[in-house]
Amino acid sequence: MTPTAVVSTKDRLLEAAFEEFSRNGFAGARVDEIAARAGANKALIYQYFGDKEALFQLVLERKMQELARIATDDPDRLHEAVGEFFDFHAANPDLSRLMLWEALDFRGKALPNESERKKHLAEHVAEIERFQKQGKVDPGLDARQTLVTLIGMVHVWFSLPQVARMVAGTDPHSAESLRKRRAHVVDVARKILEVR
Amino acid sequence: MTPTAVVSTKDRLLEAAFEEFSRNGFAGARVDEIAARAGANKALIYQYFGDKEALFQLVLERKMQELARIATDDPDRLHEAVGEFFDFHAANPDLSRLMLWEALDFRGKALPNESERKKHLAEHVAEIERFQKQGKVDPGLDARQTLVTLIGMVHVWFSLPQVARMVAGTDPHSAESLRKRRAHVVDVARKILEVR
Repeated sequence: MTPTAVVSTKDRLLEAAFEEFSRNGFAGARVDEIAARAGANKALIYQYFGDKEALFQLVLERKMQELARIATDDPDRLHEAVGEFFDFHAANPDLSRLMLWEALDFRGKALPNESERKKHLAEHVAEIERFQKQGKVDPGLDARQTLVTLIGMVHVWFSLPQVARMVAGTDPHSAESLRKRRAHVVDVARKILEVR
Repeated sequence: MTPTAVVSTKDRLLEAAFEEFSRNGFAGARVDEIAARAGANKALIYQYFGDKEALFQLVLERKMQELARIATDDPDRLHEAVGEFFDFHAANPDLSRLMLWEALDFRGKALPNESERKKHLAEHVAEIERFQKQGKVDPGLDARQTLVTLIGMVHVWFSLPQVARMVAGTDPHSAESLRKRRAHVVDVARKILEVR
């Protein structure tokens, strides 16, 4: 096997793992199924990744690294970064499912990749606080709570799609629905952040 | 068996069903387990409720009816109604779990109790639109999208508790955390709704 082929099997396994975890959660996912989906030998999973938990951690880590690229140094574009966060979730609906599974599976337990994710979230909080000091974001807001709120107004569309569908009356994943929701989210983010 | 005893077994079964569905979702819940938890005969479940789906529907319906009591005729108190919606979820953490399971289990399918719930959500949309016409709520907002946003900023605390915990650095269910989150949610709801 050439090194290229090794990388490619690894990538196929990671992709298959992402699908299987999104579908069945951490507890319900089967390593056999991941191997079958990737057309690879199950033993390779243990060889490459260790155990199921390490694999889950790696899958989540890779998605979160893509997500972490969204940031802005421009306080006037913070609401636009919320729009980009929305686009990321729209393009990765399985990630929202994975996070629901995580909420259900890891209740009260340490999360896969927790310290990395905390660090990344803390950077966003620091960003909001910096903009507050610059007088560009409402100083009356609690920066941590505000970050959760911005995440929540994006996430609800994907994590409670049944509610979005009942309220909006359309498939939340249709192009038209996504366009409308994105425009609303960016507009409301701007309003929340603006100095009173 | 007296009629009182019958009602009480029924209630015990409904409570046990709520717990079991919250823990394992619709697909994963076991009727045997519900009967065991309620200390009742499994046959009674079929006798009282029909099948598992009808039972799930009834469980959700009862919780939603409690929730439906939150409404306001006073546009100046709409943000306070969001606070009451938060209190309801804080007092019923299992309901948020049930809604996550619903998102995962009923992807694209008709929901238990869907027409009732749609009607109830439409009433909230109509409420926002009425307040907009009265000049009490920002007329630039899409009422449907706004309702989803208000739901989302409340719900995220309970449906993505792992994110809330990582950002806020505390147990999202602690009294102090809940107090802080509630104050933020009410404040931000007011800001979102206010006429620009």
